[in-house]
Amino acid sequence: MITDYSERIVIQEVAPRDGLQIEPTWVDTADKIRLIDQLSLAGFTRIEAGAFVSPKAIPALRDGEAVFQGITRRPGVVYVALIPNLKGAQRALYAKADELNLVLSASQSHNLANMRMTREQSMTGFAEVVALAKAQGTRLNGTVATTFGCPFEGPIDETVVLRLIDAYQALGLQGVTLADTTGMANPRQVYRLVKQVLKQLPSAALTLHFHNTRGLGLSNVLAAYEAGARRFDASLGGLGGCPFAPGASGNICTEDLVNLCDEMGIETGIDLPHLIELSRTLPALLGHDMPGQVAKAGRNQDLHPLPSAVA
Amino acid sequence: MITDYSERIVIQEVAPRDGLQIEPTWVDTADKIRLIDQLSLAGFTRIEAGAFVSPKAIPALRDGEAVFQGITRRPGVVYVALIPNLKGAQRALYAKADELNLVLSASQSHNLANMRMTREQSMTGFAEVVALAKAQGTRLNGTVATTFGCPFEGPIDETVVLRLIDAYQALGLQGVTLADTTGMANPRQVYRLVKQVLKQLPSAALTLHFHNTRGLGLSNVLAAYEAGARRFDASLGGLGGCPFAPGASGNICTEDLVNLCDEMGIETGIDLPHLIELSRTLPALLGHDMPGQVAKAGRNQDLHPLPSAVA
Repeated sequence: MITDYSERIVIQEVAPRDGLQIEPTWVDTADKIRLIDQLSLAGFTRIEAGAFVSPKAIPALRDGEAVFQGITRRPGVVYVALIPNLKGAQRALYAKADELNLVLSASQSHNLANMRMTREQSMTGFAEVVALAKAQGTRLNGTVATTFGCPFEGPIDETVVLRLIDAYQALGLQGVTLADTTGMANPRQVYRLVKQVLKQLPSAALTLHFHNTRGLGLSNVLAAYEAGARRFDASLGGLGGCPFAPGASGNICTEDLVNLCDEMGIETGIDLPHLIELSRTLPALLGHDMPGQVAKAGRNQDLHPLPSAVA
Repeated sequence: MITDYSERIVIQEVAPRDGLQIEPTWVDTADKIRLIDQLSLAGFTRIEAGAFVSPKAIPALRDGEAVFQGITRRPGVVYVALIPNLKGAQRALYAKADELNLVLSASQSHNLANMRMTREQSMTGFAEVVALAKAQGTRLNGTVATTFGCPFEGPIDETVVLRLIDAYQALGLQGVTLADTTGMANPRQVYRLVKQVLKQLPSAALTLHFHNTRGLGLSNVLAAYEAGARRFDASLGGLGGCPFAPGASGNICTEDLVNLCDEMGIETGIDLPHLIELSRTLPALLGHDMPGQVAKAGRNQDLHPLPSAVA
């Protein structure tokens, strides 16, 4: 175990996108805007604010244009839009997203199921997206979904992931995200792969996106940190389930991650009390309990009064 | 991060004791017995099967004698009873517990609140317990509750914990458990303290007992493993809440821990499919959802069929 935790991390908040995308309850555009604006105030410098995908595929995010139009753009905050193809990119650029997050899957069958095309077709399509975005000076990030395992195929060959990173780099993207889409990663695997990837990519260009589907999300963050990763996706309240694991956790929970960092001395720049307060508004907004723990338990320093028999 | 995970760990299952103790729903003696017998069959070599405490303080465990009498004692399994004082020890010895687990708190105020006496009074009382148990050839373990933080006092001075371990050792106990009673530990703190403690205690004599109250339970297990710890408490389904964190997780979840170990190559001797099946019976038994993840999500190798549009 390393002993130096002095290097700060960057947390990209993804609740407005990955968090909401499979929620059955419709969240009003005004509520989405309020959530994103509150997240900006809590100290995030990167927020994935929406996706430009088929409204039939993901109806929960069909108001992407109105959301990007309505938010208050706080200086220094990068508002990211997820896009799967050229059409999505055109919409996102029109909505003035600061960064486009392209996505394909390391697993061929997962890409076919999600995108209705092969990985190769996805990557080929991205060339046009990149040309368009660069012409407008918009930043680009590429996500490799199912990096650590596929719910249809099982284990993913590391060389496939490394080749996809190469392909993204060849397109000239600013960053790459490795996503554990259905929570199959373990810390040993994460440590090994991140060490490997950081030989070809600088730390500032690599984001890790973990889900807590099998309870290993924060352990995977620590393993990635030890291997040199410094950028992580997380979702307020742990919002964002998995279609293959009804009732299980979704994305790693932002306030649980910030609490971990606060306790270990890793700087995040995020205001934890503000974040906890914001997370506690989610159950009323979405009609169900959240998987996150710190919003329920409070911070360590939120002490309890002694029972009256003792005090 | 270490790269050698070849040393196996021992998991002591605590659902029948710490898991059940704050459950508002009464679990029939026959159901408790069935649960413990199934746990024996799943491969555990240590099960905390009950507590001998005041039935007024913990009514959920008031049938300790009947439980110990009714279980099928599988050869090689150590059936442990938690006891706070001499009276509890007398009952546990009469019930033929294989091992007594003494408990006091590192925090003075927590010991006063829980035991109605000071830490020093607890430790003095244990001398009589030890004499009695040794006369009958019964094994002894000593737990230090609130080792990593107290919900009333906050941080606990490490030297207090080390002195209590010394005192347990002076009594000639076979083992010591360091318990994170309300889930306040972090991996950095755990690594440091375990490294320190293993200078005075062999690894086979040290158990770590983590709660997942703030989502850090499994991260703390890995930090302790890296520091040399090889024995851990865990609770089926993650059963066992915390009175100070309504709705938050309880003990670390056994099947989530076994899944982590299976994925990383750490041997446990526990049959994970059997354990998952057993965990899935808990919601019906207790009338609520469990915090554990793997019982909901399944193992990585439990693959899903491709959507029909692709297959």
